[in-house]
Parts: sequence; C-alpha cells; structure tokens
Amino acid sequence: MRPRRRETAKTGANEHAARSLRYRNLVNPFEPTRIFSDDQVENIHLTALGMLERQGMRILSPRGRAALAAAGARVDESTQMVYVEPGMVAQALQTVPSEVEIAARNPARSCRVGGRHVVFAPVAGPPSVSDLKGGKRTGTIEEFRNFVRLSQAFDVIHVLGQMVEPQDVPMAERHLETSLAQLTLGDKAPYFYCRGAAQLADCFAMARIAHGIDEETFRNRPVCYTICNTNSPLQLDVPMTDGIVEFASNGQLVIVTPFTLAGAMAPITIAGALTLAHAEALLGITLTQVVRPGTPVMYGSFTSNVDMKSGSPAFGTPEYTKAAFGAGQLARRIGVPWRCSSATASNAPDAQSAYESQMSLWGALLGGCHFILHSAGWLEGGLTASYEKFILDVEMLQMFAEIFQPVPTSADDLGVEAVVEAGIGGHFFATAHTMQRYRDAFYAPLVSDWRNYGAWSDDGSKTATDRAGAVSHATLAAFQPPAMDPAVSEALRDFVARRRSEGGALPVS
Amino acid sequence: MRPRRRETAKTGANEHAARSLRYRNLVNPFEPTRIFSDDQVENIHLTALGMLERQGMRILSPRGRAALAAAGARVDESTQMVYVEPGMVAQALQTVPSEVEIAARNPARSCRVGGRHVVFAPVAGPPSVSDLKGGKRTGTIEEFRNFVRLSQAFDVIHVLGQMVEPQDVPMAERHLETSLAQLTLGDKAPYFYCRGAAQLADCFAMARIAHGIDEETFRNRPVCYTICNTNSPLQLDVPMTDGIVEFASNGQLVIVTPFTLAGAMAPITIAGALTLAHAEALLGITLTQVVRPGTPVMYGSFTSNVDMKSGSPAFGTPEYTKAAFGAGQLARRIGVPWRCSSATASNAPDAQSAYESQMSLWGALLGGCHFILHSAGWLEGGLTASYEKFILDVEMLQMFAEIFQPVPTSADDLGVEAVVEAGIGGHFFATAHTMQRYRDAFYAPLVSDWRNYGAWSDDGSKTATDRAGAVSHATLAAFQPPAMDPAVSEALRDFVARRRSEGGALPVS
Repeated sequence: MRPRRRETAKTGANEHAARSLRYRNLVNPFEPTRIFSDDQVENIHLTALGMLERQGMRILSPRGRAALAAAGARVDESTQMVYVEPGMVAQALQTVPSEVEIAARNPARSCRVGGRHVVFAPVAGPPSVSDLKGGKRTGTIEEFRNFVRLSQAFDVIHVLGQMVEPQDVPMAERHLETSLAQLTLGDKAPYFYCRGAAQLADCFAMARIAHGIDEETFRNRPVCYTICNTNSPLQLDVPMTDGIVEFASNGQLVIVTPFTLAGAMAPITIAGALTLAHAEALLGITLTQVVRPGTPVMYGSFTSNVDMKSGSPAFGTPEYTKAAFGAGQLARRIGVPWRCSSATASNAPDAQSAYESQMSLWGALLGGCHFILHSAGWLEGGLTASYEKFILDVEMLQMFAEIFQPVPTSADDLGVEAVVEAGIGGHFFATAHTMQRYRDAFYAPLVSDWRNYGAWSDDGSKTATDRAGAVSHATLAAFQPPAMDPAVSEALRDFVARRRSEGGALPVS
Repeated sequence: MRPRRRETAKTGANEHAARSLRYRNLVNPFEPTRIFSDDQVENIHLTALGMLERQGMRILSPRGRAALAAAGARVDESTQMVYVEPGMVAQALQTVPSEVEIAARNPARSCRVGGRHVVFAPVAGPPSVSDLKGGKRTGTIEEFRNFVRLSQAFDVIHVLGQMVEPQDVPMAERHLETSLAQLTLGDKAPYFYCRGAAQLADCFAMARIAHGIDEETFRNRPVCYTICNTNSPLQLDVPMTDGIVEFASNGQLVIVTPFTLAGAMAPITIAGALTLAHAEALLGITLTQVVRPGTPVMYGSFTSNVDMKSGSPAFGTPEYTKAAFGAGQLARRIGVPWRCSSATASNAPDAQSAYESQMSLWGALLGGCHFILHSAGWLEGGLTASYEKFILDVEMLQMFAEIFQPVPTSADDLGVEAVVEAGIGGHFFATAHTMQRYRDAFYAPLVSDWRNYGAWSDDGSKTATDRAGAVSHATLAAFQPPAMDPAVSEALRDFVARRRSEGGALPVS
C-alpha cells in the first residue's frame, strides 16, 4: 500500500479506535482444549471431595468456622479443622451464578464474567516496579497510579488491579490511597485487597461513593473483585477467610485461588497439584455460598511447578500450560466461572518473559478461561511490575482479542472476483476488493516492528522491549483521567482525608 | 530441593537425555481448533475447485502442462493455462497417502508425516545469518554446516533443511555442498531444493549413496523432502513444476506451498487468501498424483498479511494464526497431511520474535499441523537465520513436546497420601511422593532462567537472547557428527568431487 501511506496514516487513528472498542467485550469462540477424559475429571473431583470430607481443611478464622459449622460442616475448634461432606459442597455449587456482570462506574467498562466472555486483569501484588531507564525499585503510590493509568488506557484491559505495593504510604492508609487511585484515575472495576474487615469497610464505602449507590444497591451489584488465596496445603488464613465472608455478605466478586506449586506446597504431579487445588477451591466457594447464596464467585487456579534445582517457582512452563487446561475442565465440571493467570519467572522483559507469558495465555485461553489475572505487567515471578512488560503483554492480549474475532466467509470475502481482477501472477494492492478493506483489514500492532532490516537498523535497531518502553512513556504522557463528577471526586477525597485523620485501618494478618 | 542440588545435578544429564529421546516422535493429543464451520470449509473448497476449473492456473513448465493434459486437464499452450475439473482433483486426492514414513539414514531418526504425528523442520531459505557477536552477514557453507550441526543436535528437530544460502560456493556446486553437509553432519532426513532436474539427479544420487540403496528401493522409500511454492496468484514456475514432477516420479515427499500474503499476492481477506491458496495447493497436489499415484505429498499453507503501512510482509500476526487454524481445516477436508510454519517479522531475536513465532506455533499445533517448517532459526521475515533465535525456538519446541505428553492420573498420581504426609500447611519437598519423582518431574529448560533476581543479576543480568547465544556456542563446540561408514562418506565425497570437476549443475529458473 506504499502509494497510499499518507491516507492510511490519516485514517489510522480512527480505524484503530474503532478496532480497539471491540476489545472491551471479548468472546472466546474456541472449544476448550482438554487434557483429561470426563472420567479422569470426575475422579479428580471425587478425590478432592473425599479430601475435604476426611482430611479436612484448617480455617484460621473463627468467623469462617462458625459460618461453615452453621451450614452443617463438622468443626473441631481445638484444631481449627473443618470437615465438609460432598452433599454440602454440591448444594453450594447449585447457587453459584454461572455468569455475572461486574458493573464499572462507566457502564461502557462493565464486563461479564462467565459464559464465553473473557476478562483481562493487570498484574497484582508486586512489591517492586521496574523499567529499562530506572531499573528495579520499591513500589510507590505514584508508580501505583501510573499502572492504573496504563490499565485504564488500553481497552483490552478490562478491570483495574493492585499492580504494585505503594510502600511510601503508611500501611494503615494504603487501602485508602490505592482505592482512591483506582476510583478516580480509572473507570473500570477495582480490585480491593482482603486485609481485614475494617479496610474493606473503607473500600466498599468508597466504591459506593464512586457509584453513587446505597448499601442495598451495592449488595446486589458487584462492582469490585478480590482474590482470596488459600495457604496450600489445606489451610485458609484469617484475612483471606474474613475477606471471603465480607465480599460474600456484600455480594461482591470473590475469586478463590489456591496457589499450588507442584513439588513445594502441593504434590509434585500435575494431577496431584490440581486435586489439592480443587479441594481448596471447593471449600472457599462453599463458604461464599454459605454466607450468601448467589454470591458471585470464581474458581481460581494457579498451579505451576518449582525449579527442582533451585527451589524457585517457575511459570509459563509446559506443566503450567497443561495444568491450566486441566483446571479449566475442573471448573466446567462444577459449573463455576474460571480464573487463571499469565505469568513468567523471567527477571527481564525479554524473550523468555514473552514466551512464558504467552504459554500461560494460551493455556488459559484455549482452556476456556473467563478471567486472566496478571495478564499485563507481571515480571520476575510476580515480584516486579514492569512497564515494558505491561506493554508487551498488552500487545499479546490485543493479538488474542483479534484472534477471537470471526473470519467472514461471504462470497465477497472469498475474493473470487479480486483474483480475476488481479490476474494470473498479478498483485492485489489496487484491486477494488483491497481498496474497500485495506484501512481496517489487519491488526495494527502496538510494539511489533514490521519494517525491513534497513529501515529498522537506521532507526536505531531498537528491540521490542525498547519500543515497549517508549509506548509506556507516550501512553502516560497522553493520559487523561476519565470523567468524574467533581462532587463525587471531592467526596472520595474527603472520605480519604477523614479516614487518614482517624488513623486509617491496619491490615489484619 | 535445595538440600539435594548436588544429586540433582549429577543425575540431571541422564534424566535430560531420557526426556529428550521422547521428543523424537511427537504425537499431538489435542483436538484441532476450528475457525470455520463444516459448511464454510465446504464452500471454500468448492470455490477453489471452481477457480481451477474456470479461471485456471498458469503452469510455466511444458512437462507439467503435458502431464496434466495427459490426465485430462484442458490446456491452452498459447497462454500456458491449465484448467482442471473437480472430478480430476477428487480422483487425485484419492491416492494421496494419509500418513507416510520419511526414512532417515539412522532409522531412529525416521519420522512419520500425517495422522497425529508432528515433525519440526528448521528454517529454510535465508540468504543471511546473524548472531549477537558477529551481527548480520552473508551466508556461507560453514554457516550452513553450523546450522546442520544445530539441527542434528536437538532431538526436537526431526529433519534437516536449507537453513541458509551458502553464497561462498559457486551456484552450480551449492546443491552438492549442502547435500554433503546434510548427509554427513546429520543423520536425519534432508531437504533438497528444486532448482532443476540436473541438480535433483545429483541430490537423489547422493541420498542413495548415503542410504546404500538402489534406484528402485529409493523410489519406494521417501528419504528426503522438498518445498514447491506456487507463484501466487495462480501460477507455478518451471523449477517448482519440474521439482514436483521429479520428486513425484522418484516417490519422494513434496510439500506444495502457496505463499499467499493477503493484500499483496492474495485477496486481502483471510478467507480469500485461503481460498486462493487452497486452489493452488490442489493443483500442485493433483500434479503429484498424476505423475505417480501414491506420491507422498503435503498440503502446505503459508498465509499471512502485509503491513498496510509499509507493504512489508508480517508473520505471527493474529490473521496468521487464524489462517493457520483455517488451513488445517481445509487440509483435513481433503485428507492430505498439512504443513505450516513458525515465523516472525522481527529483525532481532527479541521479545517480538518470541511472541510472533509462538503465535505461529500455536496456530499450527492447535490447528493440527503435521509438519512445521521454519520452526527454528527464522528471523527477519525469513531473510536471516539467527543462531540465538534457533535456540530460543528449540526451547519453545521442547515446551510443546512436553505439553504433548500425557498427564498421568492414577490414584498415586493424585497424591492423596502425599497430602496426608505433608500435613496441613506443610510442604512436599521431602514426601515419599516427591522423592520418587523429583528427578524427572518437570521439564528442565534450555534457556529459561528461573533463579531469583539476586542470583540472576549477580550472574550478569543476561537476557534470554544472551543465554541462547551461549547455548548455541556450547552446542557447536560439543558437536560430534553421527556415525557413518567411512566407505559411504568417501563415496559421497568422491561423488561431489567428480561432479564439481564436471562443472556441477546450474540452477534452472
């Protein structure tokens, strides 16, 4: 299309915007890939149920034990052990919504969880951040805000998150500052950490202010999400258990995720790690429904393996991909929407980080995953949020979003007349068929450089990682926060100021 | 496993060798991913047949036209156009073998094409090579030999190839030197270029010497392969047509591959590019069976798109992945084994090269591909064979080989007793279940570095590309050519010397 470069450039921005809008609501058209037969899935499910019934699970929170006991679980208070019968799990599974809408304060950013919908969430949890220019450093609230801006800026990221731990903010105030950043710099659904009921009360209050809704409306409209990790094997700590109780009683989305590293905190076999994870997830899901039937909940899976040489966790490995396929089958067996992750053990935003993350993504997406956490920015086994990696990941996510789009096959799409017009051995650059479509025919990449070697080397031989860094800078420089009623913004800031003056709320451990 | 690092290191090499042996014969366990309904596939197939019947295809070689005319095609010698009716194509498809063995001179390196088998072939065709140390440079015979050594060294590479054009060898002698390198430095099946009957006569003679077989045995035992590209749209040039005729009459494996870049030499739509490619492949496949029914032949697909801004070809794009899924469906429709590719437009062995190549690989492998050309070493849209990229690709191929391995689910694999032994909140490092399995539980990577940030940065903060370069050097330094009877080796060298003294054979264009 060389002769028309000028025209293409002129229309490019609009075409990209129209294409990007399609990324907001993704539907996965592919049949899930399977590694297990139905019988094998059933066997794992029954084995996990047997584990919950006979071996039980230690629930460190008295509130959690009380709720489960009230619903019929056998509880030994002296050991904090809870034993759940299969019938109680089955009953709980009956009330789990198979699909739910997470309402964002901008309705255009609301998203659906379950069915064939796919939600991409950014990285969560790293204590550090890094970029090529500044290297690795401790997370701050300004870095947190930057990652909110990046998450907000790309349509293919559907919800916000806890992208980095802002260690320049006192612990009792972090939940206030991270909630404020998510609710004012973004208009997508936020992620609130479960670090005790007092913090969650603040977060939920801020969400209600941002949405302008009362408590009853809030309890019937999921507007935020959280991750509750079990402490494998077979243990659930106080903040996670109480988080499940708080989110469930407020009708907000809980994602129960056992983090099972095969060979470390789970059996060394994939099937064994999945069985243990399944048991733990079943217990957490059961708790949500015991607290409040109909609570939106997801089956979280995060099964990987350790490096048997160093003991370090590994991600995006072949075992990881297979475990994802298997976890998807287990989630479908119980009819609960499924959350998986994109991850890498790489210390640099390099080729390893790309191939490991993509292995994770294919495992999740071909496995039929509904919600992919850590899908942008994860580096170093989750210890660092990387600016370059964030952009490289967005490129990969956008590619998946494009792969999900249908391929039209009308008579005109088959292009017989274009072949006639081009002629034997001719070219298609100027055919009517091409001219009608060239503006929006193909995905226009964010990072990928498709120029020839000469043009690329004349321009400094920049690697994809270099270019991703430039994209992150440009995105942040151009960022405009989404519209918000000034009164709402002021109410949020007033709330934060008041709670800070009251000392905030320390995390519970 | 820190306490046992010494033991792991000691047993590591053997365990890796045993694991690597499994990579020699790969079976894809997954159901193919589909983008088209059966009706859509049928419509594309019928449209392509209509194109061959009504629009026809220009065959530049008189031998090709004569063979097709003799089998009933309508030929216009004044325009070199050949028109083929659907019935003639259908008859040809009936004699295509659905699965065939390619015999290597080492029977342990023979491989199967078709069914659920997967064959990985190295990059083919680049004029240049590159590595981090020496940069980009023109290909030589010594570089060619290095890539034979690398292709031979890894079990996951199943056949040899034309990895780089050795431009320090006179054109009339290149086929002799590249065949000699493949037949003496490797014991896997070689790739011979179709550059005229005289060159192929030499290559075939050398293959017979290497295998110690006579002409009749040779004609009934595929021991080498070639790629015949069409010149889209709807044209087949002299060397490619004559190559099909020579390979078919000698019973060797032909891979007919239209190279259809949507928007350039094919319609801008994926469905249109696939329809055109399907028509061209059908004609080439028909020719193989007309020349000799039962000729082993593959349906090659290489459909990608151009960058509409620069006109450059792009690879590993979302459109590329979708086209792969669709091509696999078309190949299965006609019952012909399918060849696809791993490719990237990246100019550097960086993150882009990894994510684009992996997008290609998933498209091919989830699409049910039997033979993946360019699966190691391809860079810069195929213009450069990269040492680092070769190793990065081998890492990804090994990961796929692992993903193909079944996940055992016996009662013991489910690990219930290990969970009891580890105890609530305990760890699995020292359980009997772990101790029985830890040596070979997980894939041990070639390039990926899973150490923590401190250990990695203390060791020089090397990227995956840096480490891949080191692996390529170490592999070449340790390389030992496979065993060969000295008399056979001498006979091959004598053959080459004689043919050189006779002037070799110039390529036909």
